Amino acid sequence: MSECIFCKIVEGTIPSKKVYENDSVLAFHDIQPAAPVHVLIIPKKHIPTMNDVQETDAALIAELFATARQIAAELGIAEAGYRLVNNVNADGGQVVYHLHVHLLGGRKLGALLSDNAS
Amino acid sequence: MSECIFCKIVEGTIPSKKVYENDSVLAFHDIQPAAPVHVLIIPKKHIPTMNDVQETDAALIAELFATARQIAAELGIAEAGYRLVNNVNADGGQVVYHLHVHLLGGRKLGALLSDNAS
Repeated sequence: MSECIFCKIVEGTIPSKKVYENDSVLAFHDIQPAAPVHVLIIPKKHIPTMNDVQETDAALIAELFATARQIAAELGIAEAGYRLVNNVNADGGQVVYHLHVHLLGGRKLGALLSDNAS
Repeated sequence: MSECIFCKIVEGTIPSKKVYENDSVLAFHDIQPAAPVHVLIIPKKHIPTMNDVQETDAALIAELFATARQIAAELGIAEAGYRLVNNVNADGGQVVYHLHVHLLGGRKLGALLSDNAS
């Protein structure tokens, strides 16, 4: 039995507000939204981070971003704009170790990073 | 003649600090880095935004992210972590209208968004 919270969401043992689902990807609203629109798009299969993506996952990665694009259009934010973010490991701010793309929008987003000290 | 600054970088009429290049993608250091590592990964062909990506571009999109992953490894930040960001149109903060993925790392990055007011 998986201990991964996103695998449990895929399995349905943890509820989610689904936005889109097909055989290979799932999209749902983030429970702690950082913007008026904050949707997570995930592969159904467990891939911990972008570092773990294999060459054979190419179509799946393309589908994650195609899904994000379609959801942005369906939610009416495509033309105004949005941001897609993938955090990897600790320095990237990754919290759940199941690959996910953040789709953020619904207002004018700020700077690329929240802190510019390098 | 293209007026797109990233097309000019692809053509070589504007110089860049290249990190990686093949037939379909180019990666180079951002001239105004927001983090110790700030690389832009772009398709060589002109696609204005993620909204303009077509189904036939699936392999290209996968390659952008595979390239980002490989560069993170080569630059030694894969395990510590990094962030991949694609800004779309005005609300997303897109500045150059030639599709690009920001690879950011080299330090612990802050919050997902620089402003959390929703």
